[in-house]
Amino acid sequence: MKTWHSEAKADETPIISSRVRLARNIKKYPFLSRITPEQSKMMIRETTDRLSNHFEFIAFDQKSDAEKRFLLERHIISPEFLKITKPKGLLMQRDEKISIMINEEDHIRIQAICAGDDIDSVWDTANKVDDLLEENTEYAFDKDYGYLTSCPTNTGTGLRASFMVHLPMLERTGQFKSVLTAVSKFGMTIRGIYGEGSEPMGHIFQISNQITMGKSEEDIISSLKRITSQVIESETRFQEKALSERRISTADRIYRSFGTLRYARSLSGKEAMEHLSSIRMGYMMKILDAPKPDLTLYQIMMDIQPGNLQLIKGRELNEIERDIARAEYLRGIFKD
Amino acid sequence: MKTWHSEAKADETPIISSRVRLARNIKKYPFLSRITPEQSKMMIRETTDRLSNHFEFIAFDQKSDAEKRFLLERHIISPEFLKITKPKGLLMQRDEKISIMINEEDHIRIQAICAGDDIDSVWDTANKVDDLLEENTEYAFDKDYGYLTSCPTNTGTGLRASFMVHLPMLERTGQFKSVLTAVSKFGMTIRGIYGEGSEPMGHIFQISNQITMGKSEEDIISSLKRITSQVIESETRFQEKALSERRISTADRIYRSFGTLRYARSLSGKEAMEHLSSIRMGYMMKILDAPKPDLTLYQIMMDIQPGNLQLIKGRELNEIERDIARAEYLRGIFKD
Repeated sequence: MKTWHSEAKADETPIISSRVRLARNIKKYPFLSRITPEQSKMMIRETTDRLSNHFEFIAFDQKSDAEKRFLLERHIISPEFLKITKPKGLLMQRDEKISIMINEEDHIRIQAICAGDDIDSVWDTANKVDDLLEENTEYAFDKDYGYLTSCPTNTGTGLRASFMVHLPMLERTGQFKSVLTAVSKFGMTIRGIYGEGSEPMGHIFQISNQITMGKSEEDIISSLKRITSQVIESETRFQEKALSERRISTADRIYRSFGTLRYARSLSGKEAMEHLSSIRMGYMMKILDAPKPDLTLYQIMMDIQPGNLQLIKGRELNEIERDIARAEYLRGIFKD
Repeated sequence: MKTWHSEAKADETPIISSRVRLARNIKKYPFLSRITPEQSKMMIRETTDRLSNHFEFIAFDQKSDAEKRFLLERHIISPEFLKITKPKGLLMQRDEKISIMINEEDHIRIQAICAGDDIDSVWDTANKVDDLLEENTEYAFDKDYGYLTSCPTNTGTGLRASFMVHLPMLERTGQFKSVLTAVSKFGMTIRGIYGEGSEPMGHIFQISNQITMGKSEEDIISSLKRITSQVIESETRFQEKALSERRISTADRIYRSFGTLRYARSLSGKEAMEHLSSIRMGYMMKILDAPKPDLTLYQIMMDIQPGNLQLIKGRELNEIERDIARAEYLRGIFKD
């Protein structure tokens, strides 16, 4: 089964993916902080039953550490979900385009994601799943505040809409701080791909709405689109500047990354992400004259994460072994 | 005309080349410090006439800066020769195996060089040229001191015998200082390839005799052979240790060098020498599984020097242009 990561659209522009997440709580159950394990189990069973025709149930608590890590690396689950000790449920579709975390910070977290720039379609998808659930469930809802959530920052629409964007040139040329400031002014935020406070890897960022209340879903999404397109424009402008003012040194850096991915015998995750970012930029800028690998760059970035490498090798790997396995995997991808 | 640099023997062992240099002065002329320009010219003419059947005369003073630099890079002339302002002469054979500097620090400097480990044959060659000259020339010679020279460090045999050796692992593992100490104890010296005080480039060194007096030529050469073979043994031992204890990280470094030479768009001389040294070591250690280029690694090292790059491009190049030309040349060598 091919996942969205492998769709060509994930590689064509700075926008890797579009994502919508809805936070919902079920009225008859207490919120996470006070729900009992028994209530949790009941809530998970009810929700699963309602969606069983559309989703696969993942027995999350029975997964190995490597499998859990894999789900985290691919953004199917959140870091918070891993930490929660109460019973948890996970529903997903095989292409990883829709997933539902049950008993994360909120009872229900619906996530829809797709490759490239198409937030309207994922908003539509998330909405449909939401409607499906609401047919038989009464959500915790207040006519003044909107959907009630564990954390007040999600109350209102319960919506987090985001774009995952690749901004190598903005980061390299030290423009990132001014981008952050600009984005914040419009009630948006930009951060590393592995959630709040995480270090950006491979120059990939998530731009998302901060504010969930006092605005309609449509307004939130259209603001996000506008801000993101300004950020992308700025990235493109800096790429063009590099091409006209520093063509050879820009190409040099990209080609050296290509050579390293093709020949290294050991690569840390951080270094590999840096080179893959460089290569992705090279293709975007049409400065790298080499056949594109069969997988998208973003798919490769996901594949070299520790959890996935361990799943490939079928066992736990220490850091040295992972670096060797990662280099081996990448040589296979970038070989002649 | 192929030069000795391109002979396969230059690549097979840590010994790149064997070299003998004889310093001689002609009795009837004053030494360099006091010789007049007219006497210099006469001396050059006489010497050239005596050897015209065997050597090509190079009108050195009419050469361009790039051509002079080229001769220096290939060790046909010495840095000192370039600095001397009195009339100078240069005789050489096309394969660059024998050359004679006239009016360097001494009137005559005969140099014989060959690829690989064969100092006996170059000693024999230098000796023959010496005999040829001596047939019609009376050298400055003292029955107690031997051949008299400008600088007392050359008096006696006037012989400097040397091996050019590639010692990447000794230098990388920080063994170099102890090698230097050991070599000095036996009246030998080890230094970078571009003469006294020069920085070692590409981990290439020259091991040569310090002492020229009180020992026969045969003794000097046999001591040099013994010391050099001990140094080589030590290099080989450290290479074997790296293979058994750090095989992957050693291979990683070598293959990364290969990737960089193959893809970089700009390379400084220092960086390129480092990578070429790495590759040469990779072939020596049989750890680099890639077809050998048509040229020897040492030939490539010579070819990427500034003087040669400028001769290839047919014009003076600034540093940025040279780095680009160097990368271009190397991509041509290491392409699929």
